[in-house]
Amino acid sequence: MYQSSIYSPGFAAFLSHRQNHLHTFHHMSKSVNVAIIGAGVVGSAFLNQLKNLKSAIKFNVVYLARSSKEAIFSNDYQPVDLANYKTANAKPLLSVDDLVKFLKESKKPSILIDNTSNSSIAEAYPRFVEAGISIATPNKKAFSSELSLWNAIFKASEAPSGGLVYHESTVGAGLPIIGPLRDLVATGDKVETIEGIFSGTLSYIFNEFSTTEASDVKFSDVVKVAKDLGYTEPDPRDDLNGLDVARKVTILARISGFNVESPTSFPVESLIPKQLESVESSDEFMQTLPEFDGVIQKVKDAALAENKVLRFVGKVDFKNNKVSVEIGKYGFDHPFASLKGSDNVVAFKTERYPNPLIIQGAGAGAEVTAHGVLADALKIAERIA
Amino acid sequence: MYQSSIYSPGFAAFLSHRQNHLHTFHHMSKSVNVAIIGAGVVGSAFLNQLKNLKSAIKFNVVYLARSSKEAIFSNDYQPVDLANYKTANAKPLLSVDDLVKFLKESKKPSILIDNTSNSSIAEAYPRFVEAGISIATPNKKAFSSELSLWNAIFKASEAPSGGLVYHESTVGAGLPIIGPLRDLVATGDKVETIEGIFSGTLSYIFNEFSTTEASDVKFSDVVKVAKDLGYTEPDPRDDLNGLDVARKVTILARISGFNVESPTSFPVESLIPKQLESVESSDEFMQTLPEFDGVIQKVKDAALAENKVLRFVGKVDFKNNKVSVEIGKYGFDHPFASLKGSDNVVAFKTERYPNPLIIQGAGAGAEVTAHGVLADALKIAERIA
Repeated sequence: MYQSSIYSPGFAAFLSHRQNHLHTFHHMSKSVNVAIIGAGVVGSAFLNQLKNLKSAIKFNVVYLARSSKEAIFSNDYQPVDLANYKTANAKPLLSVDDLVKFLKESKKPSILIDNTSNSSIAEAYPRFVEAGISIATPNKKAFSSELSLWNAIFKASEAPSGGLVYHESTVGAGLPIIGPLRDLVATGDKVETIEGIFSGTLSYIFNEFSTTEASDVKFSDVVKVAKDLGYTEPDPRDDLNGLDVARKVTILARISGFNVESPTSFPVESLIPKQLESVESSDEFMQTLPEFDGVIQKVKDAALAENKVLRFVGKVDFKNNKVSVEIGKYGFDHPFASLKGSDNVVAFKTERYPNPLIIQGAGAGAEVTAHGVLADALKIAERIA
Repeated sequence: MYQSSIYSPGFAAFLSHRQNHLHTFHHMSKSVNVAIIGAGVVGSAFLNQLKNLKSAIKFNVVYLARSSKEAIFSNDYQPVDLANYKTANAKPLLSVDDLVKFLKESKKPSILIDNTSNSSIAEAYPRFVEAGISIATPNKKAFSSELSLWNAIFKASEAPSGGLVYHESTVGAGLPIIGPLRDLVATGDKVETIEGIFSGTLSYIFNEFSTTEASDVKFSDVVKVAKDLGYTEPDPRDDLNGLDVARKVTILARISGFNVESPTSFPVESLIPKQLESVESSDEFMQTLPEFDGVIQKVKDAALAENKVLRFVGKVDFKNNKVSVEIGKYGFDHPFASLKGSDNVVAFKTERYPNPLIIQGAGAGAEVTAHGVLADALKIAERIA
């Protein structure tokens, strides 16, 4: 006779299911699936750091796009061997839709690592995040383009099933800037001003050009040395136009509550003389630049007469409702004046930090950028695994 | 006739149980239980910040010890009203065992916030963490006493069922120091040296005493002003003995892999003249201190002759296998020389940051300490809720 009892087959089946479920869950809690796009300078450094990572959570690299055409992955999610990814058999890249589907169907928590500076991947972030896939990236494009893209990414992330988005390395590479700023805002501090030197290239150029002692070093000569050392983009105008700094300022402004429409929606002082904006080759630009040395030399001399140096800074100013990128003047005892090499620096003046919180150090380079991305990936894994 | 089928009562019961389980889990994923010990200067600032917190995760304060005798809590875990905690009905404090039991029996993920500097609570951390309760705290005692306590806390935390432990505000208050250092270590960077000014009081005293220009300001006068401004402990010797700095250096050394036995197991230069260590009252100490001004004045003058200033620093040096607290000399263009007010500063020199990563700003104060604790609590909640 059948009796309804806790020992009935139905209940036993439930228990057994439940234990399996818990067992699987426990197993799942120890690993994440990772898809990596980009194996260039930053990407290679990242892969090397990931290969050596000692972590309680296992990172299964289930997809690695090692170029803009080829990716390594298998349909049964076998982990990519990071020691041999350069020679492993590759397939054509998956489309965004197929990559989202691939990761979703794995049924495991998944992280997309985008180690490119590609804007079309950045534009696809909302689709990953909506599908519950988290993102760690140094790709500035996603966070410093139109405000609508920023809003789409974070709206998707705030949904209960949305993926997490970490992007420490988009400003100052691995320096702790984005995380600490988000912490201040989240705990209720009010940002008053943000001021910083966000370009390694322009940091170097101004640290060499404008020092606490009078010098007749020419601006164009410093630019030439920076170019020869490989500190600038192939065409130095891509640094001197200030757009890279404007992108970083856009990101910090948005985090602190300033709805910046785009990196071209506020004043950006360009270091390219108007007359040279349209010359065709970077060689011609470099040859003509010395003709304009007198202009910036005058600005430097005037600053020195006030015991100040010039620095190329990005600013967010809540009191005056203003975001800008410009040449600033700083007294000799100001932390920006004693900056060295190509270091970045940022100063957060807030209600809680009337004397600013300052973070300073290398703001570019493959290793520090990669470590910022990896630290983000770890934080995501700790939350989703 | 009974048929085994997916429509059998047993299976239906399973489905219904499972949905309840998921529903409960989903509900649980939005909140954490919080027990708070301490409502002093830092504790009050914390409660105020928590009251105003806008977070997707709800923080249910189920226990608030508002003094060393009284706590507010109810056996059915009703949230404490943070607007009225000062006048609410209180009960005698729970013992550690009873508090652990109280939190465990709530069946919700729980966080202990210890806003005291009490060493007996610190010694109980392993019992909380073993029970799966996470901790956020500015209490240095837990992390800078015997190495065995540190090991017990983190061994318990590393167990699969262990609670998480975050303590950003134990060094430099809310400055981002502990988190970024842990990130560097976790991602495989090698710390070479850590050097910093970790006492707001001694930062102020040395910034006033030793400047880039010659001055005959007396050490004892600066200490007196600091005491009158309330910057020192009631007995200034509790700052001048260097032990507070030694505790912070102990914490940073341990995170970076240096097994420091205790804060008294390495050389700490005391600023208290030997002869005055045993005078009884702090008044007598202050009256006699001027007799020793000549000694430190000579050190200052010698430094100034080399274009250097004096700063009271903590150091961890892996190359020389050395941890110390001492008076250091720094060139005028060194970031430590231009420090202002009572700011703290730390410089991490690592394999990835040969030019150090520097973090600087207010390293003491209720609001900044509380925000460091609250940011930690948020990070814990994001992981366990």
